[in-house]
Amino acid sequence: MTAVQDIRENEVAVTPPEPTDAALTFIGRIHTPWTARGETPRQGRPDGPVCTIEIFEPWIIALRGVERFERLEVLYWLHRSRRDLVLQSPGSRGEVHGTFALRSPVRPNPIGTAIVELEKIEGNRLFVRGLDCLDGTPLIDLKPDRGQLKTITTQPQPGDAPDSEAPYCRKATT
Amino acid sequence: MTAVQDIRENEVAVTPPEPTDAALTFIGRIHTPWTARGETPRQGRPDGPVCTIEIFEPWIIALRGVERFERLEVLYWLHRSRRDLVLQSPGSRGEVHGTFALRSPVRPNPIGTAIVELEKIEGNRLFVRGLDCLDGTPLIDLKPDRGQLKTITTQPQPGDAPDSEAPYCRKATT
Repeated sequence: MTAVQDIRENEVAVTPPEPTDAALTFIGRIHTPWTARGETPRQGRPDGPVCTIEIFEPWIIALRGVERFERLEVLYWLHRSRRDLVLQSPGSRGEVHGTFALRSPVRPNPIGTAIVELEKIEGNRLFVRGLDCLDGTPLIDLKPDRGQLKTITTQPQPGDAPDSEAPYCRKATT
Repeated sequence: MTAVQDIRENEVAVTPPEPTDAALTFIGRIHTPWTARGETPRQGRPDGPVCTIEIFEPWIIALRGVERFERLEVLYWLHRSRRDLVLQSPGSRGEVHGTFALRSPVRPNPIGTAIVELEKIEGNRLFVRGLDCLDGTPLIDLKPDRGQLKTITTQPQPGDAPDSEAPYCRKATT
């Protein structure tokens, strides 16, 4: 494990159990302009730079229909983060906070989440705004933002039964 | 792996790689009223039933400060989901969608996310509304909802330097 920082005053580390409860597959890789922790924005912004998300085989076919969404939720593995801090002091004031009261990358399961604006998809690459992670960050999931589930994707046809699991999309009508 | 459903017409499964890229530790367990997939709501609602999130040792101390937040982001492991479908047909119309165009629990890395309203914390238990997962679902992360990062937690003191990583909270002033 590579620690992203040494431990600071009043921070507390524990000896965590071996992480053997479940296992992840990296399904892609995220490309951003940031190559060092100090360069990354604190939070992604919808007007931030366009970054690309590359999807690996055999998952590319699972992108079908993603182009209909304006906003996606992205889950990624914070591969440079230590996992053993329970109290952290990330700011400049020396205040100490529980890990679950922070969105710091340092956590027992270092998974980051972001809501991104989808600009376009070309083959196995998505072009998005709103990320804040390091270049090369492994991708673990991609799904429509939950806020998008209000707008239906297709005009209901006469006689259609209500379909509670229908997909939802970019425009209410086409 | 326990499949939550048999494969339906036009659904496509792949042979996924062994998930060996990263490993998770279950940090707690979620208690909800739902014991079968068919009972769970499609999406959690802020006016849904109060559910409890139990935190395991050695992570309980990491809850310090969480009580200040109204809304939390919860990440959990969808332990009953198959992981090999790339095209799915979850609705009643027979339409087929890419896995990444759905919020279905069936995905290469079956991680669910929810935004919950925090009612109270007692010891190692959080009482929240807004979940939609099965009783017994393993917890993998807990963090302040990103939307809460606008409201600062404490009144700035004279002479304080701006602190871009200060925590943020339930009320703008106290």
